[in-house]
Amino acid sequence: MGFVNNSQSELFIGIDGGGSKCKAIICDSQGAVLGRGIGGPANPFYGFERALGSIVESSENAIRNANMAKETLSSLIAGVGLAGVNLPALREKLNEWQHPFGEMYLTTDMDIANVGAHAGEEGAVIIVGTGSCGFISQNGCKEMFGGHGFPIGDKGSGAWLGLKAIEHTLLAMENFEQKGLLANEICSYFGVNNGISLSEKLVGKASQHYAKVASLVFDCEEQGDKKASQIVNEGADYLSQLSRRLLKHKPPRLSMIGGLATYMLPKLDDDVKQYFDDAKQQPEVGAYHFAIQQWLHSRGANQNAIA
Amino acid sequence: MGFVNNSQSELFIGIDGGGSKCKAIICDSQGAVLGRGIGGPANPFYGFERALGSIVESSENAIRNANMAKETLSSLIAGVGLAGVNLPALREKLNEWQHPFGEMYLTTDMDIANVGAHAGEEGAVIIVGTGSCGFISQNGCKEMFGGHGFPIGDKGSGAWLGLKAIEHTLLAMENFEQKGLLANEICSYFGVNNGISLSEKLVGKASQHYAKVASLVFDCEEQGDKKASQIVNEGADYLSQLSRRLLKHKPPRLSMIGGLATYMLPKLDDDVKQYFDDAKQQPEVGAYHFAIQQWLHSRGANQNAIA
Repeated sequence: MGFVNNSQSELFIGIDGGGSKCKAIICDSQGAVLGRGIGGPANPFYGFERALGSIVESSENAIRNANMAKETLSSLIAGVGLAGVNLPALREKLNEWQHPFGEMYLTTDMDIANVGAHAGEEGAVIIVGTGSCGFISQNGCKEMFGGHGFPIGDKGSGAWLGLKAIEHTLLAMENFEQKGLLANEICSYFGVNNGISLSEKLVGKASQHYAKVASLVFDCEEQGDKKASQIVNEGADYLSQLSRRLLKHKPPRLSMIGGLATYMLPKLDDDVKQYFDDAKQQPEVGAYHFAIQQWLHSRGANQNAIA
Repeated sequence: MGFVNNSQSELFIGIDGGGSKCKAIICDSQGAVLGRGIGGPANPFYGFERALGSIVESSENAIRNANMAKETLSSLIAGVGLAGVNLPALREKLNEWQHPFGEMYLTTDMDIANVGAHAGEEGAVIIVGTGSCGFISQNGCKEMFGGHGFPIGDKGSGAWLGLKAIEHTLLAMENFEQKGLLANEICSYFGVNNGISLSEKLVGKASQHYAKVASLVFDCEEQGDKKASQIVNEGADYLSQLSRRLLKHKPPRLSMIGGLATYMLPKLDDDVKQYFDDAKQQPEVGAYHFAIQQWLHSRGANQNAIA
């Protein structure tokens, strides 16, 4: 990361508010990492107050990790990526937040993930974690595909895989579908032996509770379970389609990121798999780039000053 | 309804706590209907306090409809059918409720629907409304199939049909699936033209919001929309399987009830359709039967006294 005019003395914090945890990174204007912190879930759809709390928690942990005084928080310039801030209603609520930072710039979780994956440059990403979506930033235009949330969208994501596995398990426990390895593993994971007990474990629960069993679906698929393979393949088919959609725009780079990327990328169709490059930096570093870009922009500085 | 020993002076209230509304009926021991009332949603999974409020609301409305004094409430013997009271955790919470009745007997919504459908006798039902499930009461034993709730179970139900239609619409709006009549109708119902707006209308919403578009799925199916037909057929296939499961026990009667019964029954396979008889009474009347049965049981009276 390069030299930024007139911002040598400023400190920046990049925050990635994810569905299962919130990550913060404090850097100076040269990109030197001073501290890192983690907080609880920060998806504002499933607990607005908790999301705000997790942002503060991760920031305070980063401050502590950097051996800085607690008061430093109020001078940090924050870039925050959060699910759903492209929705007017949520953005309005967030704008009313009396945040603890010196400045705060908000964008979507997809945007900071994409900026991070390409180290501040343009490109496209597929994010596959608790949720799933595609995002492309090209010639200053940003477009998103999917990412509509649980339970209506996010095909191929951890929560979607979990939902499909649990739907199947409930049907299998009552002999409406064949009970095999996957249903048995789901039952033993939740410690249940009937549908009512499984239902009780999940009723009203947010997407991350479903995503917890996603790796178990992949385990069963590797062991040859038919139902697990069917679920994984349906998810992978969608993600291959999504890749083709992004590749149409010929982005300079394409990456797959998120907690399930290492599981899902090998399952994609061969014609798209070859186009994927490793992500260069984490989403919280992307949030840091975003913070600097927005801060310079707000001061009317030349954004090209960032190398 | 017949003669009940020593209960001529008692008044009973049967309450059906449904996902979209709560219905109450006040009857004397001879079965004469004195008043009826309706309240708001009463599914304790999606708002425990609201469910309790809806029970009281429907009861007070029934009291008013019966031209009775408000204070009568505290002498009524109530039978209440609610989703999820077979779950230990929910039952415990409900038992702690300082209810306004003289006595209150709790059971599942399925149980009272079944008792009502067969006018106090044994039999089996398939309930298809916001949710779906099968229930059989035979030789004193009760068994339930499905009814595991949204979004993991309740195949063929209104919320399930709505969820499938909305999943499809989100994919169709981004050209991952063919956009036809169903997706267009869903978009115009919600007044949206992109996935983010549709997502915003639904995020965090309870099952009854999804069930609202179920009749629209049937409309589109009738007009020959392929995707709508596929969704309706998948739901109907499950309900045919469920019917066979119940028929195995050779119940004296089998009925399909709930807001979607008139839509779904004609879609079932011919080999099962012939076994269905019309429900004799509404679930709230079943709750009234249940109240009398439990009240007599608690006093050690001979339950056969109920004709």
